[in-house]
Amino acid sequence: METKYMKRALELAAMGIGYTNPNPLVGAVIVKDGKIIGEGYHEVYGSNHAEVNAFKNATEDVKGATMYVTLEPCSHYGKTPPCAKAIVEKGIKKVVIGLKDPNPLVSGKGIQILKDNNIEVVTGVMEEEGRKLNEIFLKYITTKLPFCILKTAMTLDGKIAAYTGDSKWVTNEFSRKFVHQLRHRVSSIMVGIGTILADDPLLTTRLDTGNGSDPIRIIVDSNTRIPLEAKVLHVQSKAKTIIATTELADGNKLKALESAGADIIITPLKNNRVDLSYLMKALGERAIDSVLLEGGSELNYSAVEEGIVDKVNAFIAPKIIGGREAKTPVGGLGKALMSEAISIENIEIHSFKDDVMLEGYVKKH
Amino acid sequence: METKYMKRALELAAMGIGYTNPNPLVGAVIVKDGKIIGEGYHEVYGSNHAEVNAFKNATEDVKGATMYVTLEPCSHYGKTPPCAKAIVEKGIKKVVIGLKDPNPLVSGKGIQILKDNNIEVVTGVMEEEGRKLNEIFLKYITTKLPFCILKTAMTLDGKIAAYTGDSKWVTNEFSRKFVHQLRHRVSSIMVGIGTILADDPLLTTRLDTGNGSDPIRIIVDSNTRIPLEAKVLHVQSKAKTIIATTELADGNKLKALESAGADIIITPLKNNRVDLSYLMKALGERAIDSVLLEGGSELNYSAVEEGIVDKVNAFIAPKIIGGREAKTPVGGLGKALMSEAISIENIEIHSFKDDVMLEGYVKKH
Repeated sequence: METKYMKRALELAAMGIGYTNPNPLVGAVIVKDGKIIGEGYHEVYGSNHAEVNAFKNATEDVKGATMYVTLEPCSHYGKTPPCAKAIVEKGIKKVVIGLKDPNPLVSGKGIQILKDNNIEVVTGVMEEEGRKLNEIFLKYITTKLPFCILKTAMTLDGKIAAYTGDSKWVTNEFSRKFVHQLRHRVSSIMVGIGTILADDPLLTTRLDTGNGSDPIRIIVDSNTRIPLEAKVLHVQSKAKTIIATTELADGNKLKALESAGADIIITPLKNNRVDLSYLMKALGERAIDSVLLEGGSELNYSAVEEGIVDKVNAFIAPKIIGGREAKTPVGGLGKALMSEAISIENIEIHSFKDDVMLEGYVKKH
Repeated sequence: METKYMKRALELAAMGIGYTNPNPLVGAVIVKDGKIIGEGYHEVYGSNHAEVNAFKNATEDVKGATMYVTLEPCSHYGKTPPCAKAIVEKGIKKVVIGLKDPNPLVSGKGIQILKDNNIEVVTGVMEEEGRKLNEIFLKYITTKLPFCILKTAMTLDGKIAAYTGDSKWVTNEFSRKFVHQLRHRVSSIMVGIGTILADDPLLTTRLDTGNGSDPIRIIVDSNTRIPLEAKVLHVQSKAKTIIATTELADGNKLKALESAGADIIITPLKNNRVDLSYLMKALGERAIDSVLLEGGSELNYSAVEEGIVDKVNAFIAPKIIGGREAKTPVGGLGKALMSEAISIENIEIHSFKDDVMLEGYVKKH
C-alpha cells in the first residue's frame, strides 16, 4: 500500500525533471479512506513545493489524511514557508517519507516538527528509487559540486567516429532522442574545444515536444581557440555559454567572447590545461548542480582521471567500422595496466531499438 | 505438445556441442501414450545418429510411437545406414521434424521415404531454434565454408588492452569461461601472428569439467614470423596447429614448423598478406566447419573487410582505461564514413555478472 502511493509520488516528482535544478525532484500524494484526494509535485525552481501543490489540488478536506512524499518535508523558511508546518496546520494524520533530507544542516528537522505535533511518520519507503531519482540533488546538496554524467557513443568495435572524423551517426534516432532528454534534465553540458572545432554543435535540447530546457553550455578551451562565429556563441537559448579557460587565454579574445555574451571562468593551469576540479567548484558556486559531459575523448579522459565523473551513460551501436586511427570514447594517455582501469558499477542495460546503453556509476575509492 | 517434446529433442541435440563437427547437432525423442520412451542424440562425429540412439535407449516397444527429431532423418548410406529406413522398419507412426535437411542434395528425401511408407510427417516445429542451434552446420553444408565467429572483448571505452599492451584481464572470469565454451564448440580458432608474439597463448579449451575439445589452432602469419618455441607449437592437444602463410614465407622456417608438427597452408597474396577468403575455402576442404576468430585487431579488420565473418560475440567490461594509443577490437585502415560501417543485426544481450556480451550477425548484402 505504502509502495503503491510512494510509486505515484515518485512519478509525480519525475515530472519536474529539467525544471527544478538545483532543487530536488519531489512528489506528494494525499490519501484518505484508500483514495487519492490530492497530488502535487515541485514543478519548477522557486515555485511551490510538492506538498503545497498537493494541498492546492486536493479535492476533499485533507484533515485526517495520510501524505506520501518522496523527500522529507522542509523545516526552514526559504523561497516558500516550511512544508512541515503546513502539514501540521492542515491536520494530516500520518506522513510517509521516501528519503530523509540529505542536507546535513536540516536533515531530520522536518520529521521532528511532524512528530512533535503527534503526526505518525514512516521513513525509508522506496528509498533506493528516491535516491536514484534525486542523484543529482544528493551529490550537489552534500558537496556543492555538480553531479557529472559522462555520455559516450561508440560502435561495437569501440569507435566514436571513422578515422576521417566522420561521426554521423554512430547511434540511432532513439538513442539520440534519449540524449536530448539527458540534456533537458541537467543544468549544463560540457564539451572540449576539439568538439567545437570538429563539429560546431549547438548543444541545445531538442525534444519532440519542443519544450525542453537548454543546459548551460560549457566549453573547455584552455587557449581560447574557439572561433567567434561558433554556433554555441550565437544560438537562440535562455541558457548561457561559459568558456572555461586558463591564463593561457588571449585577452582580446576573452573580451570579444564576453561581448558575444559568453561568461568566462578562468581556472589555474593543471598539466597546462583547465583544472577540471577547480572548474567543478566554480560551477557549483554558480548553482550548477549537474554536468553532462559529451567529450571528445581527450576531455573525457581528463575528467575521468581527475575523478569528477559520477555516472556513465555509454551507448553502443551494433556496427563495426574498424580503423586503428579512429577515436574511442576516452583517449588521453590512458592507464598503463588493465588492473588500473576505473570500475563502473551497478550496471543497468537499456535498449534503444538495436542500440544498447550501459548505465553505471564510477566506483569511488 | 509438439513444442514440449521438440524442446527436449533440442536439449539433447545440444549435448553434442563440440563433438559432432562437421556433422549437425541432432536430438530425437520417442513418445508413446503421452510418455517419453526413448531419447538419443548424435554424440560424436562418426558415431550413431540421434534416431538410432533413441531406438537403442527405448524402454518399451516403439511400434506405433511418435518420434520428435530436430533434423530431417537422413536418406543415404554414409557412416551409418539411413535413419529414415530404420524409422520405417521400427514401425514409428508419426515423425515430427524441426528442420528439413539443408543439404540441397538430400533435402526432402528422408521425408519422402517416411511418407511413402504411410508415416505421418510434420515439419518446421521450433524451426528457428533448430536453425540457431545448427548455424555452423547450416552454413558449412550449404557453402563448404566455415562459419566464422568474431569474438572480441573490450572495456566500456572500447579498448582491448592498455596503451602498453597489457590486457590481463579485460573481462571477468564468467565471460572467460564462456569463451572456453565457444572454443569447445568450434572446430578451429584463428589468431594473427601479432597475438602470438604479444601474448604467446595456448589457444586450448579449458572447461571447468576438464573434458573440452580443443579447436584446431590457425595462426595467420604471412611472413612466418612465429617463433619455433611458441606455445601453440608445443601444446599437448589432440588438435593440430595450422600456419596460414604466403609465398613470403621462409622455406627453412616452413620445414622447421612442419618438423614441429604444424600443418602449413599457403595462400595467394592479398594486399601482401594471407588471402583470408582462399584460406576459408582451404579450411572448408579440410572439414573445418567453424572458425572462432580471436584477433588481434588487424586480423579482425581484414576478416570483416573480406566478408568472412558471420557472427559477432562482443564482450564489454564495465571499466574505463583511456588511451588514445590503446588498441580497439577492430583496427586496420577502417571505413572512411560512419555510414559505411558494417551492420550487426539480430542483437541479443547476454550478461556475465557485470560484463555484457552482445551477440549478433553480420548483415549480408
